[in-house]
Amino acid sequence: MSTSTIAPPELTSITWWAQTIKESALREMIELVMNPELLSFALGLPAPEFLPLAACRAAASRVLATDPRALQYQVRPESLKRHLRGLMAMRGVNCREDQIFLSSGAQQATHLLVNLLLDRGDQILIEEVTYEGLHMAIQPLQPEVLIVPTEPGRGMDVDAVEAQLVRGARPAFIYAITDGHNPLGTSLSLDARERLVDLARRFRVPIVEDDVFGFLNYDGPGLPPMRALDEDWVFYIGSFSKILAPALRIGWIIAPDAFKPALTFLKHITDLDLTTLAHLTASAYLDTGEMPSHLATLRREYGMRRDLMLRALESHFPTEARWEKPSAGMFVWVELPPGIDTVGLLRVAVETERVAFMPGAIFSMPGGRCGRNGMRLNFSHCPPERIEEGVVRLARVLKRSTGRGR
Amino acid sequence: MSTSTIAPPELTSITWWAQTIKESALREMIELVMNPELLSFALGLPAPEFLPLAACRAAASRVLATDPRALQYQVRPESLKRHLRGLMAMRGVNCREDQIFLSSGAQQATHLLVNLLLDRGDQILIEEVTYEGLHMAIQPLQPEVLIVPTEPGRGMDVDAVEAQLVRGARPAFIYAITDGHNPLGTSLSLDARERLVDLARRFRVPIVEDDVFGFLNYDGPGLPPMRALDEDWVFYIGSFSKILAPALRIGWIIAPDAFKPALTFLKHITDLDLTTLAHLTASAYLDTGEMPSHLATLRREYGMRRDLMLRALESHFPTEARWEKPSAGMFVWVELPPGIDTVGLLRVAVETERVAFMPGAIFSMPGGRCGRNGMRLNFSHCPPERIEEGVVRLARVLKRSTGRGR
Repeated sequence: MSTSTIAPPELTSITWWAQTIKESALREMIELVMNPELLSFALGLPAPEFLPLAACRAAASRVLATDPRALQYQVRPESLKRHLRGLMAMRGVNCREDQIFLSSGAQQATHLLVNLLLDRGDQILIEEVTYEGLHMAIQPLQPEVLIVPTEPGRGMDVDAVEAQLVRGARPAFIYAITDGHNPLGTSLSLDARERLVDLARRFRVPIVEDDVFGFLNYDGPGLPPMRALDEDWVFYIGSFSKILAPALRIGWIIAPDAFKPALTFLKHITDLDLTTLAHLTASAYLDTGEMPSHLATLRREYGMRRDLMLRALESHFPTEARWEKPSAGMFVWVELPPGIDTVGLLRVAVETERVAFMPGAIFSMPGGRCGRNGMRLNFSHCPPERIEEGVVRLARVLKRSTGRGR
Repeated sequence: MSTSTIAPPELTSITWWAQTIKESALREMIELVMNPELLSFALGLPAPEFLPLAACRAAASRVLATDPRALQYQVRPESLKRHLRGLMAMRGVNCREDQIFLSSGAQQATHLLVNLLLDRGDQILIEEVTYEGLHMAIQPLQPEVLIVPTEPGRGMDVDAVEAQLVRGARPAFIYAITDGHNPLGTSLSLDARERLVDLARRFRVPIVEDDVFGFLNYDGPGLPPMRALDEDWVFYIGSFSKILAPALRIGWIIAPDAFKPALTFLKHITDLDLTTLAHLTASAYLDTGEMPSHLATLRREYGMRRDLMLRALESHFPTEARWEKPSAGMFVWVELPPGIDTVGLLRVAVETERVAFMPGAIFSMPGGRCGRNGMRLNFSHCPPERIEEGVVRLARVLKRSTGRGR
């Protein structure tokens, strides 16, 4: 039988929400900023020069020479969990190894928790501008999205959260980023952490706490995450992607005991097993005891880059632009006057100045208007000697496109 | 605020289907067979002695010494796709590199395709006894499951498939295992492959073709998979887990072009990125050119173990037991007289003889009665010198529990 007379399957035959991506201008934009020839502040990448290639090479080599389980199915990751327990203690979190659940990076942790906690059509409570990976993970379940603002310097607006809950909202969970908010750069104040945990208990609403930037604090040790305040209502997400190596795809959840079997089942149906080679390699790397000094290096170097970026913004960006100094994470969020849409700016920036950033529209729910005048600037990946140059190029784009300058 | 007065969250607060696993006796059984002290025919594990530890060690070492992208995000896996294209040509499949989509093992490939093709409440067409990872992947979407029998020696009953379609059934997809069916061991006849592809075109119903055992053929080269017959309606799933190393978690889909953006989006929301270290390591291993001889070794050794197991069954199992000689894969399916439930037998086998197998009930839809008198015996993992001993122990269990013997 020849296929030529029969039309092949079309996108119309697949589930409705997968179709929505076809039109997505945002996808196109991400393609745009992936061009390696750009001077880019766009993605949340670690600096390549601080990825511990030699140490991971030694670790992988040790594992494959000494541990015959390194290529097999179903190896229990006990040694890595012991290390994670120690790492979490550095964040002020006490947990047992059996409360730690390993995932393929923080995105899988998020996806698993979304599918654990959220039923189709449930409510969910998030900030109006937040990590787009969360938006994507909830999209197939079409929740009713309750939105609260973010306060400069303090993070998620807890008064607004309380008002929603008092009014009767019962979201499946509240999603909060603890330190170095993506994309806003904000860290939650101590007061906000305590009040959120109290609200969670009082209204019996779990918190999904995204702490992937929690080890990257630049102005002192930072505050412990909410998981340090409560172990019943806080589902904690951690990751090695920002602090060790994204390509290992290692994240973790710290979850209340009762949810372990369901998480195990969800992980099993999703991808069956851990990437044991990566897990044993990470564990062997942690065996060397180099992690604390590696983290110290990242904090020093990324903190320096942050300061370089802030100084360059101060010198070159228009006076109408607003930003805060982030005490953690990888991003400075620059807010331009309302009415300026940074999606258009990005195209101009890439085409005329070969410089890229992430436009704010990415970080609001599809169809939302929040953040459209914002730009997320990553300071961890760009070599320090090129940061000012990039900011100068961006300032030229702003001047030409909006008439605003210094 | 003290938590002691407030009850923590309970499983009742999570999505309905995650709750269903709580009662699952099957989960318990899997725990049972995971005991490493058993002489086990239970799991579909590769033989540890054929996992290429030294070669993968050299490959990982080479990658981490020479490729600075090895630990970073978003590395395009072009070199691995070139190798996969070559590997697929060995299976008689011509495909372009851009039709290959990488996943975290075959289970993620299955999960992605289920979520791509199946809307909540849709129909799906499967065999009455089939791979339980497919059951798990579809469970959250609650499809209407249409069931067809499997014919001894020929695989999925294509007459029954056609009858369903003619009667008006329009499943989101047909799920078929090409060679070395899990758990039945059967391979689809050439006629069945051709007819299934014709039905897919005629009724515009895609086939999800699970070919994870396709490179493990023991009686000659085997037949090409259905993807070799049609590239519009067949979504092909391959994996390195059975032929290279499960711990790398590398699977792949070969999909019609139009579905690539949707698959990319689904993968992105699920876990963002590939485990690049594992992918580059696999690619570096394939660079050595050792794969064809590695496959030849697996075929020779697993084929020998299959024959040992068949001879032992012939010598020791009761005359009422039925099995076929599988020409591919890792399993012999033994059918006992109707009325014997192999779940109960497994408990006795583990407790009295320290021997394990996978009971047939695992492989029918939850609540289904099919396969309850079947036992899946894996012949790839157990050392050859212990295969007969394991079969003898199982025969003793059968004799004692059912009174049936030789």
